[in-house]
Amino acid sequence: MAGSTYGTLFKITTWGESHGAAIGVVIDGCPAGLPLSEEDIQIYLDRRRPGQSRFTTARQESDRAEILSGVFEGRTTGTPISVMVKNQDHRSKDYGRIKDCYRPGHADYTFDAKYGFRDYRGGGRSSGRETIGRVAAGAVAAKLLYELGIRLTAFTRSIGAVTIPEEEYDFSRITENKLYMPSDIYAKKASAFLEECMKNKDSCGGVIECRITGVPAGIGEPVFQKLDAALAAGIMSIGAVKGVEIGDGFLAAGALGSANNDAFYAEDHHILKRTNHSGGTLGGISDGSTLIIRAAIKPTPSIAREEKTVTKDSKDTTLAITGRHDPVIVPRAVVVVESMAALTVADLLMVNMSSRVERLKEFYL
Amino acid sequence: MAGSTYGTLFKITTWGESHGAAIGVVIDGCPAGLPLSEEDIQIYLDRRRPGQSRFTTARQESDRAEILSGVFEGRTTGTPISVMVKNQDHRSKDYGRIKDCYRPGHADYTFDAKYGFRDYRGGGRSSGRETIGRVAAGAVAAKLLYELGIRLTAFTRSIGAVTIPEEEYDFSRITENKLYMPSDIYAKKASAFLEECMKNKDSCGGVIECRITGVPAGIGEPVFQKLDAALAAGIMSIGAVKGVEIGDGFLAAGALGSANNDAFYAEDHHILKRTNHSGGTLGGISDGSTLIIRAAIKPTPSIAREEKTVTKDSKDTTLAITGRHDPVIVPRAVVVVESMAALTVADLLMVNMSSRVERLKEFYL
Amino acid sequence: MAGSTYGTLFKITTWGESHGAAIGVVIDGCPAGLPLSEEDIQIYLDRRRPGQSRFTTARQESDRAEILSGVFEGRTTGTPISVMVKNQDHRSKDYGRIKDCYRPGHADYTFDAKYGFRDYRGGGRSSGRETIGRVAAGAVAAKLLYELGIRLTAFTRSIGAVTIPEEEYDFSRITENKLYMPSDIYAKKASAFLEECMKNKDSCGGVIECRITGVPAGIGEPVFQKLDAALAAGIMSIGAVKGVEIGDGFLAAGALGSANNDAFYAEDHHILKRTNHSGGTLGGISDGSTLIIRAAIKPTPSIAREEKTVTKDSKDTTLAITGRHDPVIVPRAVVVVESMAALTVADLLMVNMSSRVERLKEFYL
Amino acid sequence: MAGSTYGTLFKITTWGESHGAAIGVVIDGCPAGLPLSEEDIQIYLDRRRPGQSRFTTARQESDRAEILSGVFEGRTTGTPISVMVKNQDHRSKDYGRIKDCYRPGHADYTFDAKYGFRDYRGGGRSSGRETIGRVAAGAVAAKLLYELGIRLTAFTRSIGAVTIPEEEYDFSRITENKLYMPSDIYAKKASAFLEECMKNKDSCGGVIECRITGVPAGIGEPVFQKLDAALAAGIMSIGAVKGVEIGDGFLAAGALGSANNDAFYAEDHHILKRTNHSGGTLGGISDGSTLIIRAAIKPTPSIAREEKTVTKDSKDTTLAITGRHDPVIVPRAVVVVESMAALTVADLLMVNMSSRVERLKEFYL
Repeated sequence: MAGSTYGTLFKITTWGESHGAAIGVVIDGCPAGLPLSEEDIQIYLDRRRPGQSRFTTARQESDRAEILSGVFEGRTTGTPISVMVKNQDHRSKDYGRIKDCYRPGHADYTFDAKYGFRDYRGGGRSSGRETIGRVAAGAVAAKLLYELGIRLTAFTRSIGAVTIPEEEYDFSRITENKLYMPSDIYAKKASAFLEECMKNKDSCGGVIECRITGVPAGIGEPVFQKLDAALAAGIMSIGAVKGVEIGDGFLAAGALGSANNDAFYAEDHHILKRTNHSGGTLGGISDGSTLIIRAAIKPTPSIAREEKTVTKDSKDTTLAITGRHDPVIVPRAVVVVESMAALTVADLLMVNMSSRVERLKEFYL
Repeated sequence: MAGSTYGTLFKITTWGESHGAAIGVVIDGCPAGLPLSEEDIQIYLDRRRPGQSRFTTARQESDRAEILSGVFEGRTTGTPISVMVKNQDHRSKDYGRIKDCYRPGHADYTFDAKYGFRDYRGGGRSSGRETIGRVAAGAVAAKLLYELGIRLTAFTRSIGAVTIPEEEYDFSRITENKLYMPSDIYAKKASAFLEECMKNKDSCGGVIECRITGVPAGIGEPVFQKLDAALAAGIMSIGAVKGVEIGDGFLAAGALGSANNDAFYAEDHHILKRTNHSGGTLGGISDGSTLIIRAAIKPTPSIAREEKTVTKDSKDTTLAITGRHDPVIVPRAVVVVESMAALTVADLLMVNMSSRVERLKEFYL
Repeated sequence: MAGSTYGTLFKITTWGESHGAAIGVVIDGCPAGLPLSEEDIQIYLDRRRPGQSRFTTARQESDRAEILSGVFEGRTTGTPISVMVKNQDHRSKDYGRIKDCYRPGHADYTFDAKYGFRDYRGGGRSSGRETIGRVAAGAVAAKLLYELGIRLTAFTRSIGAVTIPEEEYDFSRITENKLYMPSDIYAKKASAFLEECMKNKDSCGGVIECRITGVPAGIGEPVFQKLDAALAAGIMSIGAVKGVEIGDGFLAAGALGSANNDAFYAEDHHILKRTNHSGGTLGGISDGSTLIIRAAIKPTPSIAREEKTVTKDSKDTTLAITGRHDPVIVPRAVVVVESMAALTVADLLMVNMSSRVERLKEFYL
Repeated sequence: MAGSTYGTLFKITTWGESHGAAIGVVIDGCPAGLPLSEEDIQIYLDRRRPGQSRFTTARQESDRAEILSGVFEGRTTGTPISVMVKNQDHRSKDYGRIKDCYRPGHADYTFDAKYGFRDYRGGGRSSGRETIGRVAAGAVAAKLLYELGIRLTAFTRSIGAVTIPEEEYDFSRITENKLYMPSDIYAKKASAFLEECMKNKDSCGGVIECRITGVPAGIGEPVFQKLDAALAAGIMSIGAVKGVEIGDGFLAAGALGSANNDAFYAEDHHILKRTNHSGGTLGGISDGSTLIIRAAIKPTPSIAREEKTVTKDSKDTTLAITGRHDPVIVPRAVVVVESMAALTVADLLMVNMSSRVERLKEFYL
């Protein structure tokens, strides 16, 4: 089937393999009139590049976004925005044993099981490079949200065993360390943890959190398009994500109702909440408070240690992944989580516009 | 928008409010030729009724499933199966303060924010009764999966602070206690915990787990229709769910790659895994091992304690929910989680049939 | 698959067979706040009943619409509106040879080819009764459009060989004759033609036209969701329809560009067209002029004449359809065409609300 | 919204404007294992180029298809196939009065009405160049159908007033004349008609027919995804199409039931039809006979005559379109109609695979 399309009104379709000619995305349904340049997208793409902090200027000339359609005189036209990123070196080389062996923790085996064969070069479609399309589209969605006063802040909450307690969050630090953590102290601890991992030829995962402010109350559609459900679908579709939480998430499962319920109060005729255990939704619809989403990222499966596995023709063997591999992908995945959140919220904001007859009347009469 | 439809090929549309005339579901796309009776559906509906264990025979004559279409001579015809459950007492009565107050933890406020007004009788569309349609449809999906050798086992993993360690699981006990826990000892502990909750006019949540065996390798569509993502969307769309995990989930975020990777081995030309940290998927596609899904259920928001809240016209007030309310909904939600999992797997199994040209040739030539 | 769902934001799902317990529709995504009663729907359902003119008061107590959900205190709530019509007599009786024979012009054979068996009672899902769900939903869509100043006028343009020339249209006559023709003279001619048909145990078809005024410019989405394309899909999905035209349709294929182009002119700062060969769309987007749609209805396939056909087990035989059958379904199909047009326009009106960033700003800021 | 996506399982998303950097399509859901080269696509693209007959070898180096993803070692991988065609000369030049005037018969006005502004260079997204994406995807769908024994034959049935009677069809001639007509005599008449048009600075339209053989019985989904409805949606979404017919189409509306019903007969245990007025479908499901589809193409709106129109700021004016414009687009649109038909049939063939439980069992057990 066609699993590469996401969204109802703000709809994206991604394409491309790690070692194909290029990789990209078609963004269809972006409202007309949004100022948009290749630079807007490039800023987001740069955030998912290896070893970069958010404001790095020394850009290597790689992963350059090209806008091929949908923008005219600096503004979106309402028609599909096609963004392409050329792959730098996609000529076939020796992929060695990966061609015939199934790497543990990777999709090699399942792609073969599904399709009968696979593009074995660097993971093909299941490579992390697939997220380039998501991030390019996420940049556009985030820009649209910005126009509506909606701000996204995504960051690394934990790396392996190192978790920042919420009371230590200092968002001003996120872009000041290469791990995108909102705490210099914990970033240092995490760096030490990572050093140890690398020394042991091992890898680790972590948790990414995304907070979204300025979302008006009323976003999300009962029953199956709840804001929570749509966010979960989007976030869980990211390659390495194995868990998603909204608000207190699994902690709520162990809490008492009296503690978990967020009390309402009124201020200047606005209805607000004293706490935000629910993470910004009630009944799957935004309640006007901050959206809080967390994603569990599994450890990078590519490790240099020798592991037991099988060949394509069902023979036992062992395999050690060679080449350079990140010991953790969490920092680079931060912008991917933010992108999927932006895409989801933008789509449901648009969908919500037709929720009341009176709104249609205001619009059309 | 239309958020009440779920699925691509096996598609369901639910409808109904807690205090409307009836509640139901239209199941469209169920393959023709499946033996199906109202009793098949009733068995599932009974599992979500209050105070019932799975094999309770003393059925009260309530929540009776009626099949209105799509079944002929005891088999599905391939056309929409409409299932309706009449609401017993849907005449308007005094809903007292709920009409004008926003209950904390409920969707009262967000429905008003979205639609301008709401059906305030018993929560309307955001009531737990909405899940009747999911469960009726889930019964059909599960029956289809059964024909293909796929079995679902859902159960209560934790109630509040009481969690069963995985090594204590005894699936034969699930239907032997009213909490649907795979351990008599922990069921007893959980019961004691619940007694305490009720004494304190409080409520709690818990974690539900669902395991699915017999799923062939290859199910799930890259990129956005990954099996993980589709399951997350389905499970997170259930009212009280605030977190979803596949396999080790958030635990994987703290693990090392060397421990988290599942080693492959060969046996009789089959490719198997020594462990199953991934929970049955790799790259979002089923790998032939058991699917493992967990859902975090928040505490029941309706508690008899007085809570701070606001009125519809933005005035501070307090509210204590009167009437009988479950101190925990986890046991009743077990079948809802199982249903959403069944619907998701059935849909993606059907979608997968066209993944290879050679399969189309076998089918049509 | 699931072919019983129609629409993106204003989405309907129909269900039911001619001789099942009931037949119905779930309307999901109707904006909240629309005044709606069962009577609103009944008026539309009555128009598709046999031998009725629009304002017939002597209603037989059959095909009664029941609203089961989605309406509270006389207004739509934004949640699914479930409408059910009970079938009067659905007990099994002798369906005689239709069980084992394939009626020419009917879907008996193709349903068996697709599903392996079929509900042979009165055509099952392929019966004209299937349109009850469309019409019930169409009534709701039309009511929504009415609130926005949009009016639909559907009528019989031709019956068999009798076609009303456009210059003879008198819309005030449509409900004054049982054929829903905008001309008493042609209605009389058509009646005479029908008498002849019946005398010869034969049947005929005709052409239905639908005109929609008040549609603002800008409705319809390039490329595949053009207003023309969406209307064509909706209208052609009606059982007996074999052709669809927008504006001049097939006549345009024989015209010259100089004659077919509609000249624009300005009046009070409005942009208008001198002619309307395009039928109200340009590039698939509404241009503010009247939408004009035509549907070709094939002759009723059920005729009392003996016809050559085959049995289920591939044996040649002959068959004459017994029982009462309309010699023409065109007059009853008028409201079905109007309903599909209303559903399509309502959906695309809602979709269009997010076409510009400035509109989102006005809405949310 | 996102109107640039078409199909359920075999899903395409087109993008690009006439004067942007490039134009293209993402084909998602194409089954894995289909042999595919750029040449396969080029053959189709060449058929929509001006002044070409099907087997023209003297190819100008323009409109070259590049496959950017989804093909590995000469075969489709099951992942998205991205096809791009670079636009030759897309630098801004003087678009003169088209920037500020609304061309009659074009989408200039409606795009402005919808989006607030438009890419005025050569029609932007509403240009005929938009069909490049459809045709590139159609080539892939047609290749898939070919593997299943399904053949498409599309041709020009009429040009302006010149219509080939069905009994004169000689399909061997289609590629032997530049108008793609199945008759040399009528091609000559049509050429003469076109000469006259050009002399008068006028344009004309015509009718395209597409016949598809080898489609197995059972394809198409009741109720809204009938094969007829899906074909109508696809064909009517082509820019200049204003009418669609299946089988006898509008002629059926004037026929008698006794003449229009196709008699069944049995031959070697196959069920066949003596005639094919229905055009290969019954109840919206394929019946195993030839699919027959016709599309009415309106005259090219760009003519060199002076026409009345208005400026963007609502002032009356006149306009004569300068530059080279085809007096008729019908011959070039033949391959576009064929492509949309191929895409539609391929999608519904895939969807049909899950119509029966027994088929799922054969597939998975």
